[in-house]
Amino acid sequence: MSVEAVTAENQAPPKPRRKLRNYLLDPQFQMKYVGMVVGVTFVVASVLGAFVYDFSTSLTDSMMANELLLDEYQGSASFQQIEERARAFDRFVLISIILGVLSLVVALGLTGIVVTHKVVGPAYKMRLLLSEIGEGRLSLRGRLRRGDELQSLFVSVEEMVDRLRAEREEQIDALDRAIAKLRAGDDRDQALASLEAMRDQMARSLE
Amino acid sequence: MSVEAVTAENQAPPKPRRKLRNYLLDPQFQMKYVGMVVGVTFVVASVLGAFVYDFSTSLTDSMMANELLLDEYQGSASFQQIEERARAFDRFVLISIILGVLSLVVALGLTGIVVTHKVVGPAYKMRLLLSEIGEGRLSLRGRLRRGDELQSLFVSVEEMVDRLRAEREEQIDALDRAIAKLRAGDDRDQALASLEAMRDQMARSLE
Repeated sequence: MSVEAVTAENQAPPKPRRKLRNYLLDPQFQMKYVGMVVGVTFVVASVLGAFVYDFSTSLTDSMMANELLLDEYQGSASFQQIEERARAFDRFVLISIILGVLSLVVALGLTGIVVTHKVVGPAYKMRLLLSEIGEGRLSLRGRLRRGDELQSLFVSVEEMVDRLRAEREEQIDALDRAIAKLRAGDDRDQALASLEAMRDQMARSLE
Repeated sequence: MSVEAVTAENQAPPKPRRKLRNYLLDPQFQMKYVGMVVGVTFVVASVLGAFVYDFSTSLTDSMMANELLLDEYQGSASFQQIEERARAFDRFVLISIILGVLSLVVALGLTGIVVTHKVVGPAYKMRLLLSEIGEGRLSLRGRLRRGDELQSLFVSVEEMVDRLRAEREEQIDALDRAIAKLRAGDDRDQALASLEAMRDQMARSLE
């Protein structure tokens, strides 16, 4: 029984720990783009917010002016009370705008991290696979997960490995046939010619 | 002369056309993520906008009520005029909010397309390169542009190609030595042993 099988039997399947940190596989790349999206939002939303705030304060000012006029007739509130109420309104608007911009930034920041993770994860996995191929293991151990991006790039890696394998299998066959002929002692020239053909084909791939 | 060569000679070098369409190399992937970011913005900004609009209409209502009160004393404006002014204010706020949400959506949509293009472009180029490697050309024609993403994945492709080349060069050397020995007619057993060693090493890479 393999170690893997033992582990699988004795342990409950590990719950995937979906911490935010786990989504930051390549913080440099991810934060750059999250930063861009969040930055654009921050600038646009702040400009809009400033506009809304300006509009709101001029509205409360005119409201205050009206109330002061009313006050002259009714005597229902002091100037301080009316001004305090108007300023409280303005503060409320300002805080709402700041909270609004912050909630946009947080919502898009989280979206950006999750989105970039779906690109960074597969890229990381492919780097490991390409490194194994470079070390001379012409097979792919591993698949992308559903929902991962760069699937078509992964398919290209698979196709490349398949073709490199097929080429190598042909080379092994050619070697086997040449070796068998040379061992048997017949057709030495033909065997050598096929080895040379193989050598030339290999050399062409390096051009 | 090939069609390509004729085309290349007779035409001026094409100016890079930075149309939005050119940024949509992989519309399915790009629009999915642009859609996610824009969708989140749309929902959050609309909720905020509805809140602002609600706040603004209650403000204009109270302003209108005050003006009507004033009106009783001053007789300066008709009820219709005051109501029209208040509703015009509300429409102005509503249109501002809609334009605000739209400008956020457009700004983030464009940002998203440019951002995803920096991932999709290199992925596309790497697919072409991997396809060439699969066809047996162990060299990389092409580089990523500065500012492209997936640079580290591209480095892994380069390293893989370098290692596959080095391995192939060793194989060619081994073949050359074995062929030379077999041609010379001496050390036949040693030459066959080295061919078999090479064959075994190749077979191991397929495991």
